[in-house]
Amino acid sequence: MMKLYTAATPNGYKASVALEEMGFDYEFEKIDLTGGVQKQDWFLEINPNGRIPALVHDDFPIFESGAIMLYLARLSGKFYGTDAKSQSRVEQWLMFQMGGIGPMMGQANVFYRYFPEKIQPAIDRYQNEGRRLFEVLERQLSRTEYLAGDYSIADMANWCWVRTHKWSGIPIDGLPNLQRWLEAIMARPGVQKGITVPEDMRARIRDDDEDSAKKFAEQARKIVVTGKPA
Amino acid sequence: MMKLYTAATPNGYKASVALEEMGFDYEFEKIDLTGGVQKQDWFLEINPNGRIPALVHDDFPIFESGAIMLYLARLSGKFYGTDAKSQSRVEQWLMFQMGGIGPMMGQANVFYRYFPEKIQPAIDRYQNEGRRLFEVLERQLSRTEYLAGDYSIADMANWCWVRTHKWSGIPIDGLPNLQRWLEAIMARPGVQKGITVPEDMRARIRDDDEDSAKKFAEQARKIVVTGKPA
Repeated sequence: MMKLYTAATPNGYKASVALEEMGFDYEFEKIDLTGGVQKQDWFLEINPNGRIPALVHDDFPIFESGAIMLYLARLSGKFYGTDAKSQSRVEQWLMFQMGGIGPMMGQANVFYRYFPEKIQPAIDRYQNEGRRLFEVLERQLSRTEYLAGDYSIADMANWCWVRTHKWSGIPIDGLPNLQRWLEAIMARPGVQKGITVPEDMRARIRDDDEDSAKKFAEQARKIVVTGKPA
Repeated sequence: MMKLYTAATPNGYKASVALEEMGFDYEFEKIDLTGGVQKQDWFLEINPNGRIPALVHDDFPIFESGAIMLYLARLSGKFYGTDAKSQSRVEQWLMFQMGGIGPMMGQANVFYRYFPEKIQPAIDRYQNEGRRLFEVLERQLSRTEYLAGDYSIADMANWCWVRTHKWSGIPIDGLPNLQRWLEAIMARPGVQKGITVPEDMRARIRDDDEDSAKKFAEQARKIVVTGKPA
């Protein structure tokens, strides 16, 4: 018995994409982030950090999207390398997402989209750092088809963030290998299914629609301002 | 043959503390961050992200401090749990450091110490988020002696950052279990040795000495302003 508590965010999709790609049977529950459900006592028993996603497998709770991916990859024996070296390569690029791509794109989103004041130096800092990290991915993808060689959870993790580059205001111009990789992963049926759990992000965010983007940012701002980013 | 490329930073110490705690024989080389050595071609072949720490074990390069810790823990069979559940608990709290404590304290340092302009809303954001994360650690440590139950790489990872709370301007008042845990880990001989590799941070930063703190911040600012945080 596996149950995913999630929402339509890049970190949420990391878990649902992994579950779909590995072919697990699971249930899911949408957590209402603007309603603060992730800070309720019952949820903090599952994830003490009060964030999504969280997974419960046979009464064993797992928080942090990166840890959920490692747990599922080990359980399924898929997308995680086959020896100490290939496994480490997967972990290196997974950590690159956890400590780099995720937090830096996340901060770009905060200052570019949600923050009540427009603070240009902070916007520039995170968009520039995001672009630099994209260029690191580009260089790696000019040498290997996927980040750690074979397709792995490291690709799923980075992809779930990088595909939202427009929302963060970070261009991917001049990065042909990154674009190739974005398209190759988008073509995978498990990935396409994973990004509809609990719902398609585009139902809430349409970054080509100014009104819709503003409305979404307005909701997200409430979370940011109270010091509790989702 | 094991060689660590590092500098006196929390992420650098994560690697050297793990190496010392696990009893590995290794060499180390100090990387001159203000001189930009981490962006030279030879180093990018070891770490494509151009950051420290990086480890080379028998010609196999490993980057990202979290991935180095997983690699060493697996190799030594120490500080990483003994079954799927205890291993996952370690990974959950390691990821909490990689995606939370590290990036948020890192951004607090940037805006509180290094940024050329004083942007109070950004300082507040990261110091508040850091305090919130400390409170998550406190709650966990009120229930268990160490983060994942037994002492593990997750404690080493979080500790290397949390102990620098004063530099980030984040108080630990009213968090008795966090303070107990900080002291217990500081008492370990391997940890004490690890935080002298490649040198003691306090040789560069003395946060009780205003002049010394300013001088260090001035050097670090150069890296931040060029968009290449160390």
